[in-house]
Amino acid sequence: MTRPQPSNCPLCTGAGGVLIASSPLWRVIRAEDAAFPAFYRVVWNEHVAELSTLSSVQRTECMDVVCAVEQVLISALQPTKINLAALGNVVPHLHWHVIARFEADSHFPQPIWGVPQRTQPDASSLLKIGLTELDARVRAALQHVFQCA
Amino acid sequence: MTRPQPSNCPLCTGAGGVLIASSPLWRVIRAEDAAFPAFYRVVWNEHVAELSTLSSVQRTECMDVVCAVEQVLISALQPTKINLAALGNVVPHLHWHVIARFEADSHFPQPIWGVPQRTQPDASSLLKIGLTELDARVRAALQHVFQCA
Repeated sequence: MTRPQPSNCPLCTGAGGVLIASSPLWRVIRAEDAAFPAFYRVVWNEHVAELSTLSSVQRTECMDVVCAVEQVLISALQPTKINLAALGNVVPHLHWHVIARFEADSHFPQPIWGVPQRTQPDASSLLKIGLTELDARVRAALQHVFQCA
Repeated sequence: MTRPQPSNCPLCTGAGGVLIASSPLWRVIRAEDAAFPAFYRVVWNEHVAELSTLSSVQRTECMDVVCAVEQVLISALQPTKINLAALGNVVPHLHWHVIARFEADSHFPQPIWGVPQRTQPDASSLLKIGLTELDARVRAALQHVFQCA
């Protein structure tokens, strides 16, 4: 199932966002989405499309990274809900969306890809801490668990 | 993080769809969505909201179930992409959406919750086998791996 790394894959040719932490197997980036500021992605470095392509050991590590990010978002932000998704319809390179959702965000309870429910001109006001501090906490948690860069 | 099972949670009070297979910890159902017929859900039986609430062993089993369903959809249907998501904004009871997506479905490459891209009056025509046979293959794969009902 492993395909060659296509030269036109944005997750093969670039980080894909603000680089928070990285290991040989994966990296965590923060998507820069003004409407959903606490939005991170766990990107598997190898160009594979589907989660089940990974070995059991790789899959466990991938989901451990997802859960480590999730846990920081929960403890730091106390969001209404965490949303996890691996879609890849546009970029079929395995990446997990890890998104803190709040009742007052523009789309709640709809998925972020759904129909807006309200105007929320300052989504960052929903976060209990700033993004610089949040990034630092995500990085620290990942370094603690995985001894990564 | 474990909350009591609320009497108004639809995933505590009902199966949530066509029951395909079940174990003491989880069940797999097929959502009955005419636009996305190959749409299964892995429901964790206990009423927990977030994946990271599970123990490592539970989480591994949960994702093994998700991947087992994914693998059947890939081998049986050769879809363009599998979409995985645990959202729970409306029903905060851990459940994974496992959805086979096709280029000709109504929303591709948008998420199923996004803006329709085209009219697809007969989504079942995109499947290489019928739903009865697909259900049977999903059930057989789960029984093989997990010795479940």
